[in-house]
Amino acid sequence: MTFNGIEFIEKKRDGLRHTREELQTFIDTVMRGEMPDYQISAWLMAAFLNGLDDDELMHFTQALAHSGETLSYPQEERIIDKHSTGGVGDKTTLVLIPLVAACGSSISKLSGPGLGYTGGTIDKLESIPGMNMHLSEIEFRDQVKSIGCAISGHSHKLAPAEGKFYKLRDVTGTVPSIPLITASIVSKKLAGGAYGYLFDVKCGSGAFMKDIGEARKLAQKLVDVSKKLGKVCVSVITDMEQPLGEWVGNSAEVCEAIEVLSGRGPSDTRELCLTLAAYMLNMSGRANTYEEGLALSSKALDDGSALKKFEELIIEQKGDSSVIREPEKVLPKASSAYKIRSDRDGYLSKLDALLIGEGLRALGGGRLTLDDTIDPSVAIRLLHKVGDKVSEGDVLLTIYYNQDKQLQESLLYIEKCWEVSNRAEKRKLIIDTVS
Amino acid sequence: MTFNGIEFIEKKRDGLRHTREELQTFIDTVMRGEMPDYQISAWLMAAFLNGLDDDELMHFTQALAHSGETLSYPQEERIIDKHSTGGVGDKTTLVLIPLVAACGSSISKLSGPGLGYTGGTIDKLESIPGMNMHLSEIEFRDQVKSIGCAISGHSHKLAPAEGKFYKLRDVTGTVPSIPLITASIVSKKLAGGAYGYLFDVKCGSGAFMKDIGEARKLAQKLVDVSKKLGKVCVSVITDMEQPLGEWVGNSAEVCEAIEVLSGRGPSDTRELCLTLAAYMLNMSGRANTYEEGLALSSKALDDGSALKKFEELIIEQKGDSSVIREPEKVLPKASSAYKIRSDRDGYLSKLDALLIGEGLRALGGGRLTLDDTIDPSVAIRLLHKVGDKVSEGDVLLTIYYNQDKQLQESLLYIEKCWEVSNRAEKRKLIIDTVS
Repeated sequence: MTFNGIEFIEKKRDGLRHTREELQTFIDTVMRGEMPDYQISAWLMAAFLNGLDDDELMHFTQALAHSGETLSYPQEERIIDKHSTGGVGDKTTLVLIPLVAACGSSISKLSGPGLGYTGGTIDKLESIPGMNMHLSEIEFRDQVKSIGCAISGHSHKLAPAEGKFYKLRDVTGTVPSIPLITASIVSKKLAGGAYGYLFDVKCGSGAFMKDIGEARKLAQKLVDVSKKLGKVCVSVITDMEQPLGEWVGNSAEVCEAIEVLSGRGPSDTRELCLTLAAYMLNMSGRANTYEEGLALSSKALDDGSALKKFEELIIEQKGDSSVIREPEKVLPKASSAYKIRSDRDGYLSKLDALLIGEGLRALGGGRLTLDDTIDPSVAIRLLHKVGDKVSEGDVLLTIYYNQDKQLQESLLYIEKCWEVSNRAEKRKLIIDTVS
Repeated sequence: MTFNGIEFIEKKRDGLRHTREELQTFIDTVMRGEMPDYQISAWLMAAFLNGLDDDELMHFTQALAHSGETLSYPQEERIIDKHSTGGVGDKTTLVLIPLVAACGSSISKLSGPGLGYTGGTIDKLESIPGMNMHLSEIEFRDQVKSIGCAISGHSHKLAPAEGKFYKLRDVTGTVPSIPLITASIVSKKLAGGAYGYLFDVKCGSGAFMKDIGEARKLAQKLVDVSKKLGKVCVSVITDMEQPLGEWVGNSAEVCEAIEVLSGRGPSDTRELCLTLAAYMLNMSGRANTYEEGLALSSKALDDGSALKKFEELIIEQKGDSSVIREPEKVLPKASSAYKIRSDRDGYLSKLDALLIGEGLRALGGGRLTLDDTIDPSVAIRLLHKVGDKVSEGDVLLTIYYNQDKQLQESLLYIEKCWEVSNRAEKRKLIIDTVS
């Protein structure tokens, strides 16, 4: 098929539908480097404003997914891939991988480096001394086979066209489009070869989706397209107006994950991990119902089997497994602490996830570009959550920092992140589920 | 003002209005080479789909116009600049320049090279041996002062940002937007420094605007923005479903222009030239009314004064002025002729300007890229116009060609360009006027 880039752009500009063949040829042309960026970005803006219908979206997603290498697993393994749209204090993957494996379902995770307020899953696990987060494809598969779980850095060979598009969207004002976001997320999942997908769509100030209406649309679109592609799929919409759990920061989140895997830890982190695990166990066939999945995973947290699976994973990936018993000794800790106290009696009515994320990044705990290095030891501890009753003088947050200058910059955000009012209700964590 | 390219794109993407300062900074940034093409093209698509209101359009046009050198004339000279949106067989500028000057109004024309079915005004006049079509700014002004008219190739220094935008629009599917076309046309006029503008908006198969609704919108927008910029302005919408006049081709159109300047020539070419001249004379103040302008210009065609002015212009610009008396001897002529005859009795019901333009280009009479050279001698003669009664065997068109291969290629278009039916009405040439 000869491809006329201008006619292709004009078609979307005029609100017409692209065929599967056109979208495939478009991606092929982009991958051969034969479509200039200025044409791709004109098309992106036209797609942003005129949309892509479900058929176009499916074909676009497939073409992105097949633009490089793809992985595959035997169908009968029914591997479920979990994806979060990103939030502050979200350490659920650290818990879910050993938890689901401990319940008897194989699970694996290929994760990209975190660009944002905190590091990504790979960065967090790298705070455990010795951890090898870059497994070869063979090591990765062998480990899934032997202990039922593995987690490794993302190969750039998966869905390379998606990376190309994402880079261009980032600098042309075409990021917040439900169809384009959906294609971006699902194409990487599709290249990864799992049997089904669980999406955790975060909603609130610390999330990409600030608005519940938009979050619902994305959750629904992720499910619709995944199902069109023959996958089992559930989207859970969860609150990200305040951070998840008690700790924000790379090594601190590993600590919190170990707490939850030990049957303890903050109730919200535990609740979200159990909910997500239950859906995954149900999708993989390990549990016949969501409720059965919930019972299985609660048991695995409480009887120590999930924690034991995490220890196996750390050993397999060459990490220092004494972290399981003495996390505070093994993991890096910041040198100084600074306390933020309430100036009045009342109820904590705001604990802004975005500002806390910015505050952690100012401490050195996140990165703006891929060249930045992350300080895994800095952290912010949330001693209260929205809806808690507090008194004047109570510590609300503790900032763990290494450099005074970074603390001062962080305080520009953290001092504005909280409010105490005469009344405030607790926030609902699991907002909705779409399946 | 610090300029954030992404926020600027997002504003137009979200349908918001740009301020004067933003648009000025945008153009400045583009001209400094600091905004990548992929961002400009994303903005162009957003502007295409979400539009620019009249204030934005005025500010965008001004910023484009002031992106390079600008010309100016004493206000009292009231120079009117005429612009055609381009058509097939449109030789009106060749007639208008001497005609308006002969009636006592100064007139000058800076023209770009033609990219399209036939050459532009400069290409056509270059078929007169010796003609200097590249005057310096001083030569140009002096000539306008001494004989009242001059015509020269366009300086690339006028509105250079417009050229940059046009090139990008051409390859990103963002050409046919009324606001963007208006900004493109008016910015060049504004940089040229005239007192007022006359726009000939062509409409039909051989024109950029195929549709009368779109042509009306463009005509109105050109007038609205020009007036907002403090200019007197008239738009005339004219038919381009069939070519203008009897001849299409570079030297042949010079011939036809001389015929019209001699008080003869095809009635449609004469009618359009008189109409445009009358508006120009009225706008420049030489005539108090359109009707007075019409009487003045009719007289100048019929008493030989317009032809004499054309002779002066040719002499001033070093051309062979014997072309006035013996055009067929001086101008290049193609070596062979091929006749197309009607296959039945009836009325000529179609004479498609687009196909005739393509046919001329196939003969070598137009150019696709600026590097192509034009053969000034090839031509197509239209012996009948739509609505004429014809008999079987009557010659409808004659193709004047130099190479058999070019004739064969041309016939692919020309054989499809005409139809004879049982009935057909003559077409109205002047469709509407907006002022």
